[in-house]
Amino acid sequence: MRNIFLALSFLIVISSCNKVKPAKQLAQTVNKADSITIKKIFNSALTNGKSYQWLDALSNDIGGRLSGSPEAQKAVEWGENLMTELNFNKVWLQPVMVPHWVRGEKEEAFFTSSNEKFNVPICALGGSVATQKDGVLGEVIEVQSLEEAEQLGEKLRGKIVFFNRPFDDALLLTFKAYGGCVDQRGGGAKVVGKFGALGAIVRSMTHSIDDFPHTGAMSYGDLEENQKIPTAAISTKAANLLSEKLKENPSLKFYFKQSCKTLPDAPSFNVIGEITGSEFPDKYITVGGHLDSWDLGDGAHDDGTGIVQSIEVLRLLKLNNIQPKHTIRVVLFMNEENGLRGGKKYAEEAKNNNENHIAALESDSGGFTPRGFSFDINSENYDLFMSWKPLLAPYGLHDFDKGHSGADIGPLKNETISLFGYRPDSQRYFDYHHASTDTFDKVNKRELELGAASMTSLVYLLDNYLN
Amino acid sequence: MRNIFLALSFLIVISSCNKVKPAKQLAQTVNKADSITIKKIFNSALTNGKSYQWLDALSNDIGGRLSGSPEAQKAVEWGENLMTELNFNKVWLQPVMVPHWVRGEKEEAFFTSSNEKFNVPICALGGSVATQKDGVLGEVIEVQSLEEAEQLGEKLRGKIVFFNRPFDDALLLTFKAYGGCVDQRGGGAKVVGKFGALGAIVRSMTHSIDDFPHTGAMSYGDLEENQKIPTAAISTKAANLLSEKLKENPSLKFYFKQSCKTLPDAPSFNVIGEITGSEFPDKYITVGGHLDSWDLGDGAHDDGTGIVQSIEVLRLLKLNNIQPKHTIRVVLFMNEENGLRGGKKYAEEAKNNNENHIAALESDSGGFTPRGFSFDINSENYDLFMSWKPLLAPYGLHDFDKGHSGADIGPLKNETISLFGYRPDSQRYFDYHHASTDTFDKVNKRELELGAASMTSLVYLLDNYLN
Repeated sequence: MRNIFLALSFLIVISSCNKVKPAKQLAQTVNKADSITIKKIFNSALTNGKSYQWLDALSNDIGGRLSGSPEAQKAVEWGENLMTELNFNKVWLQPVMVPHWVRGEKEEAFFTSSNEKFNVPICALGGSVATQKDGVLGEVIEVQSLEEAEQLGEKLRGKIVFFNRPFDDALLLTFKAYGGCVDQRGGGAKVVGKFGALGAIVRSMTHSIDDFPHTGAMSYGDLEENQKIPTAAISTKAANLLSEKLKENPSLKFYFKQSCKTLPDAPSFNVIGEITGSEFPDKYITVGGHLDSWDLGDGAHDDGTGIVQSIEVLRLLKLNNIQPKHTIRVVLFMNEENGLRGGKKYAEEAKNNNENHIAALESDSGGFTPRGFSFDINSENYDLFMSWKPLLAPYGLHDFDKGHSGADIGPLKNETISLFGYRPDSQRYFDYHHASTDTFDKVNKRELELGAASMTSLVYLLDNYLN
Repeated sequence: MRNIFLALSFLIVISSCNKVKPAKQLAQTVNKADSITIKKIFNSALTNGKSYQWLDALSNDIGGRLSGSPEAQKAVEWGENLMTELNFNKVWLQPVMVPHWVRGEKEEAFFTSSNEKFNVPICALGGSVATQKDGVLGEVIEVQSLEEAEQLGEKLRGKIVFFNRPFDDALLLTFKAYGGCVDQRGGGAKVVGKFGALGAIVRSMTHSIDDFPHTGAMSYGDLEENQKIPTAAISTKAANLLSEKLKENPSLKFYFKQSCKTLPDAPSFNVIGEITGSEFPDKYITVGGHLDSWDLGDGAHDDGTGIVQSIEVLRLLKLNNIQPKHTIRVVLFMNEENGLRGGKKYAEEAKNNNENHIAALESDSGGFTPRGFSFDINSENYDLFMSWKPLLAPYGLHDFDKGHSGADIGPLKNETISLFGYRPDSQRYFDYHHASTDTFDKVNKRELELGAASMTSLVYLLDNYLN
């Protein structure tokens, strides 16, 4: 479209957004100074933002950074150097031992049906064991759920089990569709391993019908060593093809080969920086994301965007001469993807040091256009947070909902702390999540910057109104 | 992020969204049946949508479709055949003569500064004349506005004028930034041509700093033939480089060559289909987008998405057994980009036939995730439309604002008609707008489908509550 007059219509949007909010809410904490400060924060993020160039470095110069890898160590050094250059009051590394799983050689997979051979894209799931050196070959049993596999029990012995329950496209929020399927990835091998299956192949966790397998964490739980079977994700296109061919030929043979393994735990770090509070230096507001990523892409959306947005929160506060009353900490958590060791360690140390954490915010849902925040808080603060809606609605932040905040900050949970999750639009997230397609070019500069500004605005309000 | 519990948090979003709305609004037209119907519409769009595969055909099988081109004619036939297959009650072509501008050979441009040669990406603006056969070479004068050029007046004679005012990144809504710059593209050549400039080079209309020139319409207004000078868009990266080199060397020479020309007007068509109303067959609700596009990309976002969404509106009504009371028309408007002839013709014919158009909706802002609708209506319907917010907010539709609706439906404006524009998120739009990057792969299937469902829901409510 070309029409320049269209532009004028949008002038009205911001001014009219507040009309949406009940007047009684407006009464509470909203005031002109807050709305001016928040406008300044958004202006500076959009005109003088640094998050995009930082993400370029993290994604393109370092790339995928699986826990325990040399790239993860490079990311630790990158984060420490960046925060030092930014002159935060304190910058340090918090040691943490992390799981060290390696993928090994590129996986191979195919199936043969009526003398035709179909090569299919797969990738080992994080934590899986290798196949035997020359791979695994077997007949396939397709199932739609862990329950169905349990019921088949002994019938699974010697078979390759194919978990193929797809995302429910009807669900508006893609994380809900993910939550409805991911048990197959996390627990499939555990369920069928105990019945002597040869392997578990899991449909990739995405709405998109394409050729990219999506990896992710899995667990064998308490299985004995000899029950631990290799497990891999298969692309959705290949999953549909396999399912179709199985209907024609139930006895077709599937082959896959992977050489992944788990090495001894490796030393790593959470990277921490802070601006010391002017009034309550011993009360902490933490903002963060996770520094580790899967290895197939460069971890741009998961969770490079959360990392650079979290660092940008502190820079935008300084840039706008906002001296926080409380100590504002940014934490680049290590090992969210396959262990959560960084999040657990940070909470453990906070407890050991009797640190009073009053709030924490995590960004780990991608660097997409802002939609709102989820919060996990005690009821007494509910009205306070809801009273901020009129301040944030003009920036597209309408979803203020109770719910999960973030995996890394979850271990900080107690009776008093307020936990928040940044919630961007979710529609594109699972096109890229844990796949080779999660790359820097999928991130829009302005969407990333609007997210950083949204997070900074929430931290500003928390610092101003929370005690 | 991997955490499956996160998913659970989103369960709360939809149920809580309605809380946002003042109770007095809920009182009016909102009722359970509407909310059930709208849920059905969204479910069917997401689980059984056709818009994405239609867009694949329009974008990849036909491609860019400039008015008067063979591709535009193919698009007309494609639209007529598709609507015929969909068994709409009536499908027909409405003849309209359109401007026929052709780009000719690929443009060439470079500048030389201190014996260094810099090739730069440019593209002719729609409607521009060609350069002389061997191109144009001249010194450059950089300006930031039409006013600055006017003031320079005679100083522009024999020079190439470089309009380089960039988008204002601080503006939240990208259409507003576009509106603040596009006068340079539309009117630059007209202003400097009358002072004897050799050519006008205009900074591309985008936030993105990249190598892709963005074309678009321009006009010479009432200039005499000998005052009509060639004009082209230059990529933002090249514009920044040229500006930088001009500071070092104000007398550097810029060269460009283009062979575009305007042929005699060509015959073309608006493509129209309708579902006849059961109660008020002579009252019309029109939904549409524009079938023509620029030629550099495949016109996926501008406006292939609006085309397939508009057709999908009628299909989703039929699929959900919603028999409209009023006649619902879909119009694939021809020639929005460089003439608006289709929109004018449709309004003219509607008037000639004394058709009573009660409402019209246009989608021409890209196929991105839903944000809301703009409306251009008389005050008596304002409260009615605002009362629908609680029904649409659960689907991310929060922005209900007075303003411009759409270029193609604009000519239908009168005292009584209600005009609406579909408003998706605007952040990514100008990365692709009128450039070679406006291609099918930039469209997310679910975002496109959510837009079609949003439009269908509005049409359903208009049909139900408007008289």
